[in-house]
Amino acid sequence: MSRVRIHNFAVSLDGFSTGEGQSLETPFGHAGERLMSGWFFQTRTFRGMQGKTDGRMGVDDAFAGQWGGEIGAEIMGRNKFGPQRGPWENHDWTGWWGPNPPFHTPVFVLTHHPRPSVEMEGGTTFHFIDATPEEALRQARDAAGGLDVRIGGGPATVRQFLAADLVDHMHVVLVPILLGRGERLWDGQEGLEERFDIESVTSPTGVTHMSFDRR
Amino acid sequence: MSRVRIHNFAVSLDGFSTGEGQSLETPFGHAGERLMSGWFFQTRTFRGMQGKTDGRMGVDDAFAGQWGGEIGAEIMGRNKFGPQRGPWENHDWTGWWGPNPPFHTPVFVLTHHPRPSVEMEGGTTFHFIDATPEEALRQARDAAGGLDVRIGGGPATVRQFLAADLVDHMHVVLVPILLGRGERLWDGQEGLEERFDIESVTSPTGVTHMSFDRR
Repeated sequence: MSRVRIHNFAVSLDGFSTGEGQSLETPFGHAGERLMSGWFFQTRTFRGMQGKTDGRMGVDDAFAGQWGGEIGAEIMGRNKFGPQRGPWENHDWTGWWGPNPPFHTPVFVLTHHPRPSVEMEGGTTFHFIDATPEEALRQARDAAGGLDVRIGGGPATVRQFLAADLVDHMHVVLVPILLGRGERLWDGQEGLEERFDIESVTSPTGVTHMSFDRR
Repeated sequence: MSRVRIHNFAVSLDGFSTGEGQSLETPFGHAGERLMSGWFFQTRTFRGMQGKTDGRMGVDDAFAGQWGGEIGAEIMGRNKFGPQRGPWENHDWTGWWGPNPPFHTPVFVLTHHPRPSVEMEGGTTFHFIDATPEEALRQARDAAGGLDVRIGGGPATVRQFLAADLVDHMHVVLVPILLGRGERLWDGQEGLEERFDIESVTSPTGVTHMSFDRR
């Protein structure tokens, strides 16, 4: 059975996974790149996404690299796809990632405003669907060819899939910064620990990797 | 200069340091003992407070044991002292800790309803003061004879002292449970990381010890 996985999902010590005020220039709002810059950007995994062959290994990369393998489709929320809200003014926007996004699979974007699918270079195709988590997962599994499905975020999307108990594995990166405001990851998840085996390991970069495996 | 220190201060993954619904029977509300039972109760330090000589060492105890040394006074919020709210109905309540509390120093209890000091066995004396963090600290330092002052909690008291930038060292224990409700530790602390050097280390018991030292 294909699993549902979440990877490299960073959260501040006070529980925010994105800052306040997303815009075209600030995909993470006032958080800027601080949830990712201290541990992710140096990894071989991230550098590889940029077409580079340098980058550090070690524990941060060991976790970061689990992101890619055996994934046949991704589901993401609309706010991960772009800063627009409400009806699309046009269909020019094709995501933050340029002509060749790092997904290389079908990507299902959850939105109340569907639009035609967009085929990008490198195997990524964005599909826009207005669906419950269960229905989105059914479509993603159909497209994944027996491989796993990744939930790409943002926090509202992760919360929805956790609340529906659809997540098999979740990798959370606790970053020791206090954002003070933004979108909370953990709201409404009382007792989550009863459904998962949880492991934690700290990295020399200061973050703590938490691994949740469904029991 | 005597330092202001916080020790063994546990917080759930979603940021709550105490649960909802404190009462005489449930000092931590619906959280019960879950913020302490997994890592603290087994330590040699805690067992020693109970008059026992067994107990585990290892990383949890190494941190737990820093609680006691070189402390000349404690400051705590009224909700750490007891479950009562508003004016005292009588002065019978002398804390959760029995006739010989584990503090063995003067303890300043912050309350809008002062009452006469209470001298306990073993060197603990509770003083009840209606004071700002700065004034409470001045009184505690006077009583501490040059030793350090511990801020004992609860979360509202810790937040006040952090907001007033009066804390030199803070040991937070991140417990991988989701309480969902209660009193938040981190509210209003945006940018706290800029004032502290932060270290994290995980324990085989699953908690993560975070050490904040003021820069």
